Amino acid sequence: MTSEDSMPRIIDALVHPHDLKALDDEELGIVAQEIRDQIVATTSRNGGHLASSLGAVETIVALHAELDCPQDRIVYDVGHQAYAHKILTGRLARFDTLRQRGGLSGFPTPAESSFDVHPSGHASDSLSIALGLAKARDLRGGSENVVALIGDASISGGMAFEALNQIGLEQTRMVIILNDNGMSISPNVGALAHHFGILRASNAYRDRRDYLLRRLSSSGPVARATLALMNSAKGSVKHLLLPEHTMLFEQLGITCLPPVDGHDIPALRRVLRKALHSHGPTLVHVATKKGHGYEPAEKTPEAYHGVGPFDVATGTIACEPAGNPTFTDVFGTTMLQGAREDDRIVAITAGMEGGTGLTSFAREFPDRFIDVGISEEHALGLAGGLAAGGCKPFVAIYSTFLQRGIDQAIVDVALANQSVTICVDRAGLAGEDGATHQGVFDLAYLRMVPNMRILAPSDGLELERALQTAFALDGPLAIRYPKGHCPVLKAHDVPKTLELGQSRTLVDGDDVAILAFGSMVSPAIDAAYQLREEGVGVRVVDMRWAKPLDRDAIVSAAKTKLVVTAEEGVIAGGVGHGVLGVLAEEGLYAPVVTLGIPDQFVPHGCRSGLLHELGLDAEGIAQTIRERLAGLDNK
Amino acid sequence: MTSEDSMPRIIDALVHPHDLKALDDEELGIVAQEIRDQIVATTSRNGGHLASSLGAVETIVALHAELDCPQDRIVYDVGHQAYAHKILTGRLARFDTLRQRGGLSGFPTPAESSFDVHPSGHASDSLSIALGLAKARDLRGGSENVVALIGDASISGGMAFEALNQIGLEQTRMVIILNDNGMSISPNVGALAHHFGILRASNAYRDRRDYLLRRLSSSGPVARATLALMNSAKGSVKHLLLPEHTMLFEQLGITCLPPVDGHDIPALRRVLRKALHSHGPTLVHVATKKGHGYEPAEKTPEAYHGVGPFDVATGTIACEPAGNPTFTDVFGTTMLQGAREDDRIVAITAGMEGGTGLTSFAREFPDRFIDVGISEEHALGLAGGLAAGGCKPFVAIYSTFLQRGIDQAIVDVALANQSVTICVDRAGLAGEDGATHQGVFDLAYLRMVPNMRILAPSDGLELERALQTAFALDGPLAIRYPKGHCPVLKAHDVPKTLELGQSRTLVDGDDVAILAFGSMVSPAIDAAYQLREEGVGVRVVDMRWAKPLDRDAIVSAAKTKLVVTAEEGVIAGGVGHGVLGVLAEEGLYAPVVTLGIPDQFVPHGCRSGLLHELGLDAEGIAQTIRERLAGLDNK
Repeated sequence: MTSEDSMPRIIDALVHPHDLKALDDEELGIVAQEIRDQIVATTSRNGGHLASSLGAVETIVALHAELDCPQDRIVYDVGHQAYAHKILTGRLARFDTLRQRGGLSGFPTPAESSFDVHPSGHASDSLSIALGLAKARDLRGGSENVVALIGDASISGGMAFEALNQIGLEQTRMVIILNDNGMSISPNVGALAHHFGILRASNAYRDRRDYLLRRLSSSGPVARATLALMNSAKGSVKHLLLPEHTMLFEQLGITCLPPVDGHDIPALRRVLRKALHSHGPTLVHVATKKGHGYEPAEKTPEAYHGVGPFDVATGTIACEPAGNPTFTDVFGTTMLQGAREDDRIVAITAGMEGGTGLTSFAREFPDRFIDVGISEEHALGLAGGLAAGGCKPFVAIYSTFLQRGIDQAIVDVALANQSVTICVDRAGLAGEDGATHQGVFDLAYLRMVPNMRILAPSDGLELERALQTAFALDGPLAIRYPKGHCPVLKAHDVPKTLELGQSRTLVDGDDVAILAFGSMVSPAIDAAYQLREEGVGVRVVDMRWAKPLDRDAIVSAAKTKLVVTAEEGVIAGGVGHGVLGVLAEEGLYAPVVTLGIPDQFVPHGCRSGLLHELGLDAEGIAQTIRERLAGLDNK
Repeated sequence: MTSEDSMPRIIDALVHPHDLKALDDEELGIVAQEIRDQIVATTSRNGGHLASSLGAVETIVALHAELDCPQDRIVYDVGHQAYAHKILTGRLARFDTLRQRGGLSGFPTPAESSFDVHPSGHASDSLSIALGLAKARDLRGGSENVVALIGDASISGGMAFEALNQIGLEQTRMVIILNDNGMSISPNVGALAHHFGILRASNAYRDRRDYLLRRLSSSGPVARATLALMNSAKGSVKHLLLPEHTMLFEQLGITCLPPVDGHDIPALRRVLRKALHSHGPTLVHVATKKGHGYEPAEKTPEAYHGVGPFDVATGTIACEPAGNPTFTDVFGTTMLQGAREDDRIVAITAGMEGGTGLTSFAREFPDRFIDVGISEEHALGLAGGLAAGGCKPFVAIYSTFLQRGIDQAIVDVALANQSVTICVDRAGLAGEDGATHQGVFDLAYLRMVPNMRILAPSDGLELERALQTAFALDGPLAIRYPKGHCPVLKAHDVPKTLELGQSRTLVDGDDVAILAFGSMVSPAIDAAYQLREEGVGVRVVDMRWAKPLDRDAIVSAAKTKLVVTAEEGVIAGGVGHGVLGVLAEEGLYAPVVTLGIPDQFVPHGCRSGLLHELGLDAEGIAQTIRERLAGLDNK
């Protein structure tokens, strides 16, 4: 059992974050430890963002000890580091419901608490939100504090830079806490990360200078790039180690306070107090350790970034139930095969090497693997440039984060008509991470783009074929595939590549036709078998292509009593609407049900439960068909 | 008459840019002057991007004198500065067709010439494209040069920073030319712009230091912000004037060469030669004057940014034909009225103060007007923050550039459920600027977003009502309106605000129902009157709301023989498909024609001509209806 069950705790006595002000630094240290134990205990059962939340505990304790929330506003960037904030703002009793349907969200959510300012989830937006809050305060003549807490990975996103650029100009009073743990989900990339690395070295650890130099002389590519950076900077290493000369932020007009140990509460409080009394924008550089205080997470923070249930004592992460590989696994394996056969193939990720299944690729083809960090706009532009230069780039991005690169998909990929393949992972519901992370818009925002083709593979073999198709195809292509394990569908055919715009029929039937896309093919088949037992002949078509659509399959479906389209994406502007468009163009008038995500944001919960609620599992599909057929018979 | 008509010119003798290598610096100077005269002459007739193109003439002449294009690659950011490039790469004879349908595009266009690397048009993507080209070259073992030409306004866009961050890390050989004219379309904003301003002062004009200090001591808000920047930087002004300490780029790992006069060809060639022989990424800082060499454009570069026909001798810009105000005018006027009545109203633009009609607003309410520069992501995030702080922000962005902020519209506005009004100017075809600038996707990408409401006003009075509605409404709203003058529609009603999801019927008729959105209402009315004379009763419904749709109007329309939806936007996922969705949900099976932009990029040409080609004028709408009715009768 964990400490929460056995010992009286200070945190149980805290009603409001204001109560922290009555505690001394030693007691606050105990509070931090209690919060840490609670976070470990809860995530060991529910899973969650353990490492980053552990790293930010003391910072958040110190913030609430100095601020008066909810009048003062804390904007969390990304937000997966905010568990301590939830515990301190009246949500300890419900903390065991974290990430479960109807329970606490894993991210700050204004609907959940007035202490949550903004629906955090997408990186790099906190500075814009905070500047807006600060400007609104000034216009209104208010006096509250506004604090943004942003990590070193998020601050390299373009949106954060756009905000910094204006913050420096406006000179509005606000505090930026740069939570620098030296890594994003994957170890951090980019020149800015090196810049931070150097800043850290220059201050808190100046006596480690020799160590730094030794490390930089080693032969890894990162170290080489750093050395090149230093050489190019026309200055000596000493020059770079002087913070007053290296402060990028200062040059933009933001006052920077000296770096502070992010696990030292008294030091944090001192620097925060100073920052809160500044007149303009002030940056507090906090050096933290991801996973701090829980040894397994400290040792392998990437494994404990977004973690499933684990054993607290040993740190053993519960095995996923044995089963088929995930779509992500199949992607990684097939990319590796493709790259061995075609040296034009390049893989790009935006800070998600492991998450997108590219770890083996990165190891085997380091020169042809590019992690741009949290920079989706650049990732797609870079892909366009690589393709223009004769490479065959594959950009793997989660559906929800691809929303950051839609303009680049339109201009730099589709209008430029380059052979770029956009690999849309986590397409559909992402589950426990909630509304900000559901990947439900990609079919709508990719279908609208001329020149774009979209494949939605229904199982692992189909994803393999989709990638083989991409290896052979010229021009823009997107492949969207869901989170989770591949179902195994009976394959009626074994082509290596897929014919453009051609579907396959997996179940025959003439009463109803389900035109299913990607992840919806498997439950559609199950629904068809259920309904067959009730005497209803249901055809299931694996449409394969969300664009171009198989017009023949649609025309043929319209000859049944009921056409059902099924997609794991928004109905509004989705592929079901595309099917309606084809029917209208063909002058066919048939009853159609478009199954998909209705016009609302989908909250957190396990993916299968959410799909069930939305009627997108076999049971729901069968039930919808039963009801619509009954309605038609009554007409 | 202009010089091109009367004098023999060197540029007429140039067949390939390579020919420039045979010329000496004096002759290159003559070439530059001839190009300048040609640009002035052609834009005086066709309109175009005069000021920026004049500013870049010598830089482009020097580039082509030093490079071997098309093997070497020049990537133009935005691309409206590239007229000299077009003239030097075999397109002089066709230059008089600039921006006309079937003629030369005003932007680099690979389909037009192998010298054009990338379909430029959207700011800040050149560095990503160039890095991609350089990396592809290295992977392939090539040796060509890659040069990106980017302005000081574009480089503040987040995407450019994302690219710089990786360029610094990769240390790939490439040249970045920073074309610093000290202004974007509107005078430049942002801390980075001040940074450049200081850099310029520190080098080419160090002897003007006293002047700089005097200027900074003046009392304007910009000057005050600069002084604050200097004070906050913990250094003296002298410290900032030392370029080796201020080079943001150097800190990212990019070698910076000393600034050079961008109108001095020999100096430009010297610095380019040096940059092209560098081993890693190298930045050349070129100080140019927008409109250089044509006095009227030098004096008021903003007026000559994107200019219509003008008189070369006097600089007098041809008056627009007298007529109704533009939608942009009505927006500006109504915003001003609203702001006078409600001090929560704040206006935000992303570098388009004049273009979005906010000049008067900015003058009357400087504290409540925010120009964030080319930073659409931040603009929407900032709006979300301002709304969370109690303001009522209106973000005015051209439809095509709003594509950069779709994720922020989803997360920071819609999911956060903030009272932000997104004012989508140039929604629909933008005309002469071509494929990169057509605003045809916004209905599709905004309709997919939960919580979002969308108004499409059909005339000036309706735009006024739409804004009044926005002033009174809580929650996310978008108002999309086209380029150009407002038609005057007969107003059947005079509400001050509009009921959510309610249309108005402007013409009665029971044979055919046109459900028209925004700019399509006026031609739909004309089509209805044409068809009435032929005995066909055509109803015209001004749908007003693209979301939520007026279901009653749709159900009622389905009782006619033919439903026609008409929108100035893509058909795929657009509002016509939304109408099909409503009909499917209602179980109604009616013939429907969805008029809009087909699944292809629309090239440049005058807006009315393009609308005609696409069948989106009165004639085209009437003809489509005639044909479909004939088809139905034959069934």
